[in-house]
Amino acid sequence: MRISLAAAFLLVPVIASADPLPSWNDTGAKAAIIAFVDSVTDPDADTYVPEANRIAVFDNDGTLWAEQPAYFQLLYAIDVLKQKAGADASILTSDVLKAAAAGDMQGIMARGTEGLLEIINVSHAAITAEAFGANAHAWLTTATHPTTGRTYAGMIYQPMLELLSYLREEEFTTWIVSGGGIDFIRAIAEDAYGIPPWQVVGSQGNTSYALSGDGTPTLTKDGGISFIDDKEGKPVGIMRHIGRRPIFAAGNSDGDFQMLEWTTAGDGPRFGLIVHHTDAGREFAYDREGGIGVLDRGLDEADERGWLVVDMARDWGRVWPGEE
Amino acid sequence: MRISLAAAFLLVPVIASADPLPSWNDTGAKAAIIAFVDSVTDPDADTYVPEANRIAVFDNDGTLWAEQPAYFQLLYAIDVLKQKAGADASILTSDVLKAAAAGDMQGIMARGTEGLLEIINVSHAAITAEAFGANAHAWLTTATHPTTGRTYAGMIYQPMLELLSYLREEEFTTWIVSGGGIDFIRAIAEDAYGIPPWQVVGSQGNTSYALSGDGTPTLTKDGGISFIDDKEGKPVGIMRHIGRRPIFAAGNSDGDFQMLEWTTAGDGPRFGLIVHHTDAGREFAYDREGGIGVLDRGLDEADERGWLVVDMARDWGRVWPGEE
Ligand SMILES: [Ca+2]
Ligand SMILES: [Ca+2]
Repeated sequence: MRISLAAAFLLVPVIASADPLPSWNDTGAKAAIIAFVDSVTDPDADTYVPEANRIAVFDNDGTLWAEQPAYFQLLYAIDVLKQKAGADASILTSDVLKAAAAGDMQGIMARGTEGLLEIINVSHAAITAEAFGANAHAWLTTATHPTTGRTYAGMIYQPMLELLSYLREEEFTTWIVSGGGIDFIRAIAEDAYGIPPWQVVGSQGNTSYALSGDGTPTLTKDGGISFIDDKEGKPVGIMRHIGRRPIFAAGNSDGDFQMLEWTTAGDGPRFGLIVHHTDAGREFAYDREGGIGVLDRGLDEADERGWLVVDMARDWGRVWPGEE
Repeated sequence: MRISLAAAFLLVPVIASADPLPSWNDTGAKAAIIAFVDSVTDPDADTYVPEANRIAVFDNDGTLWAEQPAYFQLLYAIDVLKQKAGADASILTSDVLKAAAAGDMQGIMARGTEGLLEIINVSHAAITAEAFGANAHAWLTTATHPTTGRTYAGMIYQPMLELLSYLREEEFTTWIVSGGGIDFIRAIAEDAYGIPPWQVVGSQGNTSYALSGDGTPTLTKDGGISFIDDKEGKPVGIMRHIGRRPIFAAGNSDGDFQMLEWTTAGDGPRFGLIVHHTDAGREFAYDREGGIGVLDRGLDEADERGWLVVDMARDWGRVWPGEE
C-alpha cells in the first residue's frame, strides 16, 4: 500500500494544542477546569453543552482584579469627591462624606455599606453616562495603587485573563456579574478583559433621558441606587441581563454564594470556582474576617458543594500581567 | 504570459451575492437600507464602523411581529387570567380584571395602560421565570390569531426576519428593545428571530431569589413593575442592557420616538427606520389614532430627521413567512 505524503500527514496525531492556562501551576485546580471544559465541549459526550448555553459568569472585585486596601471604585469615588469638594465644600453634608474627602478610610468603613453607597452616590451623580465612562477609564489607566505602584487597570489577574480567553476560545460567552457599579466596570471591561459592555452586570443607579438645553438627547446618571447586584441580587441580575442560567460561575466572597449556588444547582455539568486570597507576598491574604471580600460560608461549604477553591499561592504561577 | 487556471479564476469578478432582502420590493426603502449597511461595513470608507459598534435595535410589537387586534402579550395574559379565574374567581378584584376574564376588550382598553399592567401583573406573577418562559412559548406556538388563523409566533414579518439576518451577516448585533415584558419576548425570541435572551430588552417586573421548600434555588416572578421600557425608557433600557448607543434603530410607533431620536443623534452614520402599517389587505392599516401602536409625531417628523418610513403595502413583497 502506498500512502501519499499528504495522506500520511493526516495520519499523524494532532499535536497537543498549546497550554491554555500557562500562568496556572500544574495542580488539581488547573486540571479540574480543563476537564470540565473538555467535558462540555466534546460533541460525543453525554455532558456536551450547546454553545448558546455555555455561559460563564465572573465576579469582578477580588475575582478578576484586586480589591485591597479597598474596592477600586471606592478609591475612585473618593478622588472624585475630593475634587468636587475642592470646588464646593458644601456638598459634604454628612460625616461619611467628610471622612471620604479627608481620605479617612476608617471613618468610611465605620459606616458600612450605607456609607459606601452615599459616597458613590454623591461622587457619581449628575454626569452623562458617556462622560462618566471616559472619566473612570482615564482614572483606572493612570492613577496608581498605593502599595504595588501599578495602575488599577494593571491589577487584573493574569491567570483569570487566561481563563476568560480559554473559555471564549471554547465558545463560552463570558460575563462579569459584580456588586460594583455597572457603568464603572463597563468603562474598562472591554480593554481589560475583552468583555463588551453588554456582558457586564452590576449594581445600578438611576438614569434618565432628556433633551439638554441645546436640544441634545442626553442620558444622565441621576444618583440613587435602583439595584444592588450582590448576594441574592446576583441570580436576579443574571436573569435580568442574561435570561439564562450559567453553567460556570466564579467568585471570591460570600457575596457570590447565591450565584454559585444557583449556577451549580442546574441540571447537567456545572462548575463553581472560588478564588481564595492566600498570597500575602504577591497579592494579599484574607478570607473570613474584615470589611472587604469576606469568605466564610463559602470556605465551609465549598467541598460538600463540589466547588473548586483556587489557592492563589499554590495554584497560580504568576499573579499580574507582564510578570515573569 | 501564461496564467494558471486557478489564477485566472481569481481574476473573475466576484459574483454579486444573492439578494439579502428578497421579500422587500425594489423600492427606495430597500436601497436605502443596503446603502447604509454598505457604508458602515466598507473598511476603506470614512463611514466605516467597527463591528463592536454595529448595534441594531428593534422594537417588537408592530415592528417585528403584528400587534392587532391587541398586543399578543395581553391576549396571552387574558387566556392565563381566564384559566386562573376558573380555578379561583376571587382573584378578579377589579373591574378591569373582570373585563379581562370575560374577554371584554373595550372594558380593558377603557382603563388604559394602568389596566393593562394590572392584568399582566395578576396573570404573570407567582411563577418561576423558567416555568413562565415554557408556558408562554407553548401558547405562542399553539394558540391562533382570531383573524389570520396563524399561530402568534407565525405572525412575525418575513421582511424584518431577512433584515435581522442580513445585519447579523454583516457583523451587527441585533437587539429587541420592546415595551413588552422581557420574559415574554425571551420565551420566543431565539426560535422566532434567532435572538438570544440576553439581546432582549423589555419592561420588567420584580423577581426574587430564594430556596423553595425542598431547598431548590428558585427565581420567582413576584409581580409588580420595576421598569417600563417605553418612550424615554427605551434609551434608558438600552444603556442599562447594552451600554452603548446603537447606530441603527427600528420602530413603528411614537413609543419608539426617543429611541430613534437618541440613536440618530450620535456621531457618524446612523439609521432610523419606522414601519408604517398601510396594508389593510395583507396585515392591518393604522397610524395616528387608536389604542395600539399610535404613530403621529413620528410621521410628522420622520422626513426632517432623515428617518426612513417603510410603507408596508409599497415596500414589502410579502408579509408572513411561508407566503408565496
Ligand atoms: Ca468579590
Ligand atoms: Ca411597537
